[in-house]
Amino acid sequence: MINKLVKKIKETNAPVVVGLDPMLGYVPEHIQTKAFEEYGETLEGAAEAIWQYNKGIIDATYDLIPAVKPQIAMYEQFGVPGLAAFQKTVNYAKQKDLIVIGDVKRGDIGSTSAAYATGHLGKIRVGNNTYSLFDEDFATVNPYLGTDGIKPFVDVCKEENKGLFILVKTSNPSSGEFQDRLIDGRPLYEWVGEQVAKWGEDHMGDDYSYIGAVVGATYPEMGKVLRKIMPKSYILVPGYGAQGGTAEGLKPYFNADGLGAIVNSSRGIICAYKDDKYAKFGAENYADASRQAVIDMIEDINSIF
Amino acid sequence: MINKLVKKIKETNAPVVVGLDPMLGYVPEHIQTKAFEEYGETLEGAAEAIWQYNKGIIDATYDLIPAVKPQIAMYEQFGVPGLAAFQKTVNYAKQKDLIVIGDVKRGDIGSTSAAYATGHLGKIRVGNNTYSLFDEDFATVNPYLGTDGIKPFVDVCKEENKGLFILVKTSNPSSGEFQDRLIDGRPLYEWVGEQVAKWGEDHMGDDYSYIGAVVGATYPEMGKVLRKIMPKSYILVPGYGAQGGTAEGLKPYFNADGLGAIVNSSRGIICAYKDDKYAKFGAENYADASRQAVIDMIEDINSIF
Repeated sequence: MINKLVKKIKETNAPVVVGLDPMLGYVPEHIQTKAFEEYGETLEGAAEAIWQYNKGIIDATYDLIPAVKPQIAMYEQFGVPGLAAFQKTVNYAKQKDLIVIGDVKRGDIGSTSAAYATGHLGKIRVGNNTYSLFDEDFATVNPYLGTDGIKPFVDVCKEENKGLFILVKTSNPSSGEFQDRLIDGRPLYEWVGEQVAKWGEDHMGDDYSYIGAVVGATYPEMGKVLRKIMPKSYILVPGYGAQGGTAEGLKPYFNADGLGAIVNSSRGIICAYKDDKYAKFGAENYADASRQAVIDMIEDINSIF
Repeated sequence: MINKLVKKIKETNAPVVVGLDPMLGYVPEHIQTKAFEEYGETLEGAAEAIWQYNKGIIDATYDLIPAVKPQIAMYEQFGVPGLAAFQKTVNYAKQKDLIVIGDVKRGDIGSTSAAYATGHLGKIRVGNNTYSLFDEDFATVNPYLGTDGIKPFVDVCKEENKGLFILVKTSNPSSGEFQDRLIDGRPLYEWVGEQVAKWGEDHMGDDYSYIGAVVGATYPEMGKVLRKIMPKSYILVPGYGAQGGTAEGLKPYFNADGLGAIVNSSRGIICAYKDDKYAKFGAENYADASRQAVIDMIEDINSIF
């Protein structure tokens, strides 16, 4: 799957992933109204609204980008119907040949991580039948529990030809509280980065490992160090745009081959129609606004090469 | 909710929580057969089987214990139908006046943690209606992202009178890989423990904070230190029984008042009927075996006082 991701990034010339992180307040009025007419002002109605909203964005952008990254929390907040909308979104994006990075940030003791890995990347047997579940292509994982919390995910990735992005240095303001603390003179995130590189050695694609890392765009100096520590790990970079990361700051996350990083934008793309810059499209044409925002983002990022 | 937890622990004289972590292989044949007859060998059939299995265990133990802790990964591995079984299990346990600790180990940047907090502990507005979602009483949370990943959970806990258990030192063998690393001469888990105590000051019940900690039974020496660092935090202690933690080792997790800790057992209770010690009950009476295992566990733990 990492080979497919690299291939699609080259084809689209877009090291970009669109974060499908819908809040109900983002969904244009006309979509909400239609969904509520059909399902009432219910969780099912909300789930239908965010699904239709996502579908519009996917339809308007799938030819420009290699991947989407739905953030499962935004679906979980609508309970079981929300999670059904997550599943529909994953399935539809894959139908459009997009790679799906499930931003699930799971992680637990071994037996529990194995269950999460099954749910998000694997298959389960029920009697004589075998079922895929959420079936993302990549999942994000939290490293706090160490190797035995990660290994079950790696095992399923090997079986299913899938991949991971493991949290190393997150984009949020207080990420340094624990991640930046010095251990034998080096910050925790470097130690985690070294482990990611080690876990990744065991599961290599052609040029890059199936086991990647998450490093926030908001900390370019740290991105530079981590790029060197994990030369074969793809870096998923959140925090561009709405969170404050700039294109110029993204340089250190890429290798000399112009590869090695994929930059996420969520609100900047999916809420483009609410931005003054794209307001001319209007809420009815929110998906066209998202398309233009993707084009502009790709241009912005490619300007650094 | 922490006051209710303390009250129920005193009433039952049982600082014990039953982990409802069903694998399909744990579910006795007769329950599987019935569920598959009704729903086929499908995800819905599997979800029905684990729900009926849970219901049997809850019915057989609810009068003995203060709380249950369903591990959401075990439900997520059956996709959307599995999560519907999780919700049914939470609702049913609450009907039986059990406190429900959702073992979800979520945690992300602020806006995303807010969505998780809504989904697991809060309410959401859809048009003119307001809905509860999974609606657990407590949730477990991962601290790797620092304060701004925790605060949205604390905020929802204040609104909804609910609580958290934050991972400090986990029970798994490789938990030390990052958690034990020394920072200014003290292990990371102590720094996390200090933050848990600080986060908890802001949301106190009568004697204990709404913000508790997870510390594995498998590391009693560390439990002793953490007990002192977080005197007002309830400690959720996994790892007793199947993972190797002993009753004698649990002493340091409790305060002098005999309170301050609640010990989880999952496989040891829910799979008791597969254990030689309880085999006489037979698979048909698996719930009676679980009841006896709970009685024995309570006696074992109370022997340390």
